[in-house]
Amino acid sequence: MRTRITKDQLKSPAGFGDWSPEQASALDHMLGIIREQYMLAGFTPMHTPLVERPEILFAKAQGEVTNQVYGLRLMKPAENSPTDEKNLAIRFDHTVPLARFVAANQGEMVFPFRRCAIGPVVRGEHPKDGRYREFIQADVDVIGDKTLSFDHDAEMISIISSVFDKLAFGPFTIRINNRKLLTGYLGSIGCETPDVVRRAVNIVDDLEKKGRTETLQNLADLGIEENNAQHALEFLTRSYTIEEAFEELRSLEYGKEFATGVAELETVIDSVRQFGIPASRYCIDLSIARGLNYYTSTVYEAQLDDYPDLGSIAGGGRYDNLADDFSPRHLPGVGVSIGVTRLLRRLIKMGIVEIKSKTVAKVLVASRDFQTEKELHLSRASLLRSAGIPTEAFLEKRDLGKQLNFAARRGMKVVVFTHHGNDDHDAGRKIVVRNLEQGDQIIVPEADLVVTVQSML
Amino acid sequence: MRTRITKDQLKSPAGFGDWSPEQASALDHMLGIIREQYMLAGFTPMHTPLVERPEILFAKAQGEVTNQVYGLRLMKPAENSPTDEKNLAIRFDHTVPLARFVAANQGEMVFPFRRCAIGPVVRGEHPKDGRYREFIQADVDVIGDKTLSFDHDAEMISIISSVFDKLAFGPFTIRINNRKLLTGYLGSIGCETPDVVRRAVNIVDDLEKKGRTETLQNLADLGIEENNAQHALEFLTRSYTIEEAFEELRSLEYGKEFATGVAELETVIDSVRQFGIPASRYCIDLSIARGLNYYTSTVYEAQLDDYPDLGSIAGGGRYDNLADDFSPRHLPGVGVSIGVTRLLRRLIKMGIVEIKSKTVAKVLVASRDFQTEKELHLSRASLLRSAGIPTEAFLEKRDLGKQLNFAARRGMKVVVFTHHGNDDHDAGRKIVVRNLEQGDQIIVPEADLVVTVQSML
Repeated sequence: MRTRITKDQLKSPAGFGDWSPEQASALDHMLGIIREQYMLAGFTPMHTPLVERPEILFAKAQGEVTNQVYGLRLMKPAENSPTDEKNLAIRFDHTVPLARFVAANQGEMVFPFRRCAIGPVVRGEHPKDGRYREFIQADVDVIGDKTLSFDHDAEMISIISSVFDKLAFGPFTIRINNRKLLTGYLGSIGCETPDVVRRAVNIVDDLEKKGRTETLQNLADLGIEENNAQHALEFLTRSYTIEEAFEELRSLEYGKEFATGVAELETVIDSVRQFGIPASRYCIDLSIARGLNYYTSTVYEAQLDDYPDLGSIAGGGRYDNLADDFSPRHLPGVGVSIGVTRLLRRLIKMGIVEIKSKTVAKVLVASRDFQTEKELHLSRASLLRSAGIPTEAFLEKRDLGKQLNFAARRGMKVVVFTHHGNDDHDAGRKIVVRNLEQGDQIIVPEADLVVTVQSML
Repeated sequence: MRTRITKDQLKSPAGFGDWSPEQASALDHMLGIIREQYMLAGFTPMHTPLVERPEILFAKAQGEVTNQVYGLRLMKPAENSPTDEKNLAIRFDHTVPLARFVAANQGEMVFPFRRCAIGPVVRGEHPKDGRYREFIQADVDVIGDKTLSFDHDAEMISIISSVFDKLAFGPFTIRINNRKLLTGYLGSIGCETPDVVRRAVNIVDDLEKKGRTETLQNLADLGIEENNAQHALEFLTRSYTIEEAFEELRSLEYGKEFATGVAELETVIDSVRQFGIPASRYCIDLSIARGLNYYTSTVYEAQLDDYPDLGSIAGGGRYDNLADDFSPRHLPGVGVSIGVTRLLRRLIKMGIVEIKSKTVAKVLVASRDFQTEKELHLSRASLLRSAGIPTEAFLEKRDLGKQLNFAARRGMKVVVFTHHGNDDHDAGRKIVVRNLEQGDQIIVPEADLVVTVQSML
C-alpha cells in the first residue's frame, strides 16, 4: 500500500508556483502581447532546451548565479539508465544558451542575428521577497558579426516602450545610461583597479535599494575619499533634461573612457528620438548599472511611474562579445529581458492586473433533458466551436438551473438550450440564447444559433 | 583564464535539442493550432511548475518512468544556499501535477474541471530512435466530481479529430477501445491474476511493434495456452465495421467486466457520432491498450494513415480516480496527450512539414545611405510595426545590394528604401517598395508606405 500524501506535500515547492486557470489566462495574455511586439520588430523565436552542459553555464555564470545552478540526477536509476547526469544542468537565463547556439551555428547564420526567447529559467535562490526559483524570462537579443551599430540599442529601448504601451500597466520610464561613462567617472574619482570599479558600480546600482547613507558608507569602505563619494552621489543622481545633460557631460574631463561613453550615449539617445519614442518614456539616469551583468556599454531599465516599489520591470544592455569563451569570432550583442513571473505575480497581488474568468469558454451548451436531447446538444457544441467560438458542453445530468449557475460561476457569457414552449409545435427546433451578463434571453430558430451567439459576445 | 569550450561541448546534451528559428516557427505554429482547438472546446490553460516534490511524482510513476525521474542538486552551493534539493524533482508528465493541483484546490474548484497544459516534461531515457529526454506534451483533461459521463470521452476524441484536421498532416484514424473489454477478455482466456492480465495487456499493446510470432511467443511465456493465444490475436485484430463489431461483441459471453466494457464502448461511439466526427476518422481497434498507463476504461490513439511507421501521434483515455493517493475524494477523469516534440521532429525530418523562412519579419527597411537617412529609416520601421506588419530595420552600414540579399536569404517578402531619382525634385519623399517574390517594385509617396506594403503581403 502506498502512503497517503499530506496536505503540505500537495503544495508545490517554495519558489515553484502554480498558475491557476485564471492566473494562467493573465500570464498567457501578457506573454502574447510581449511576443507580438517582439515579432513585429522582426525577432524570431528560437528555442533552446531547459537543460545545458554545466561547463557552458559555468563559463558565463557570474557572481551569485554561480552558486544557483541546479544539476540533474536520476533519483532511482535502473541498471541501464543513462549515466551522463554530470553533464546536465538547468539554464539560469536565455543569454548563455544563445551564446552557445550562435557559437555552434555561426557558419550557417546571417548576421545581424535577431531572436526572441520566452520561457522558464531556474535559479537556486532563497524563495522570499517575491523571488521565484522558476520564472519566465522574455528576451530579445541581436548579435552582430564584428560590429553592431548603436541604433540597435535604441531599437531595444523602442521595443520596451511598445511592449509596456500595449501591456497598459500605466506610465513608465526607461532610464538609460552607459557603463563606460560610469566606469570612466568612477576611475577618475579614485577607483583604481578594474575590480574596485566593478564593486563601485554595484554599490551605485544598489543606491535606490540602500539609500544615500549606506551607499556613502559602502563607497568609503571601498577606499573612496568622502568628498569624492559625495560628489559621485550628486553627479550620478542629478536630474536634468537630455539637452542639459549632454551639454554638461560633453564638457567634463574624466578621461577617454568617460568621453567614449558620453558619445555612445548621445548616439543612442539621438536614435531613440528618431524611432519616435515619446520623450516622456525615457530619461538619462547615470546611476543605472544593471548590477553584476556582463554589459559593457549601453544599459537601460524601465520602471512603472506609479509603482516605483516594483523596481526594474525590464532591462538590458550591450555586451561586447557574446560568444567570448565559446568562439574566437567577435560577436557584439545587445538585448532586453523582461522578468515576467515576478512582475505579473506582484501586479496580480496588488490588484493592478485583474483576474476574472475561470475559463476561456464564452458559451455553455446546456440541456433540460440531456439524455433525450443529446444529439442536438453535442452537434450544437461542434457547430459553435467550428465557428470559432470557445464553447463548453455540459455533459453531466444536472438541473438546468445548476447548469446556468455553473456557467455564471465560471464567468461564461452565454448559455444556449432547447426551447420547450407549450404552444409551439416545433419547439424542439428553437433555441433559447441567454445572455448571462445582461440577464435577458431570446428565442431563435436553430439556424440562427451561431449569429445570435456572436452578436452577444 | 577560462578554458575555451570545445566544439563538441557546444552541442546541446543528447536528447535535449535546440529548435533553430525556422524549426521554432514550425513548432510555434503547431502549438498555436493545438492550443486554439483546445481553447475552442473550453479547456483553459493551467500552468504547474517544472519542479515538483519527488513524493508526488513517485506516488504516481509507474513502470519504467519510475527510473526516469530527475532530481535537482545545486552544483556549487554557497554557505547560505537553499538546502531543500532532496524535495525537488522535474515533472515527467502533466497528469501527475494536475492530480496534485486538483487535490490541493478541490475546495474552490467547480467540477467538471477542464484544463489544458502545453509544455516541456523531462524523462531520463536513452536518447535514441527519435526519443527525446525533454519533450513537449500538449494535454487536455476533464475531471469530474464522483461521476463523469462517457460523453466526455467522446469529446476528447472529437478534439483529437479537430486538432489533426487543422494541422493538416493528411488523413488519420483514431482507434478506440475499452480496457475493461480487453482485460475481461484476457481474463476469460486464462490470464488469472491482475498482474498476468496487466502483462498480457502490454504484450497485446506491443503487437504492432513486435509482430505476430513474437507476440504469440510472449503470450505463451505468460502461460496462455496456444489455442487461446491464437484466438486472442485473431479476435483482437479483426477488422470490421462498427455495426458488425457491436453485433458480435454484444453476443459474446466473456463475463461481467467484458460486458461492461462493451456497453461503455458503445456509449462512447454513439456519442462520437453525435459530435459529428466523420466516420472515416475513427474505428474500433480491440488491440489498443495504451501501455503501462493508468487508464481503466476508454482508451484511444490516433495514427496518420499515410505514415503508419510514425506510430501513435496522440492518445489518451479514462482513469478512474485521478487524485488517488492524494485525496479521499473520488475524481474520475479523461484526457488526451499529444507528444508534440517527437511527432514534429519526425515530420520535419521526413519533409512532411516544410521549414521555410528564417525570420518572422516580412519587410526589411533598407537605405542607400543610412547615415543621412537615418531618421526616415527608423521612423518607417516604427510606422510599419505600429500598423501590425512584422518589420526588421537594417541598422548596419552596408551596400543596398547586400541589404536586398540579406532580406532574400532570410525569406522576407518586401524591401523598402528611399527613391533617389535624378529628375524628381522631391525624390527623397518617395519610397521604393520592392517585392522580393515577384522581383518587381513600385515607387510611391511616403504617405502610401503602409497600404502599399500591405497590398504585397
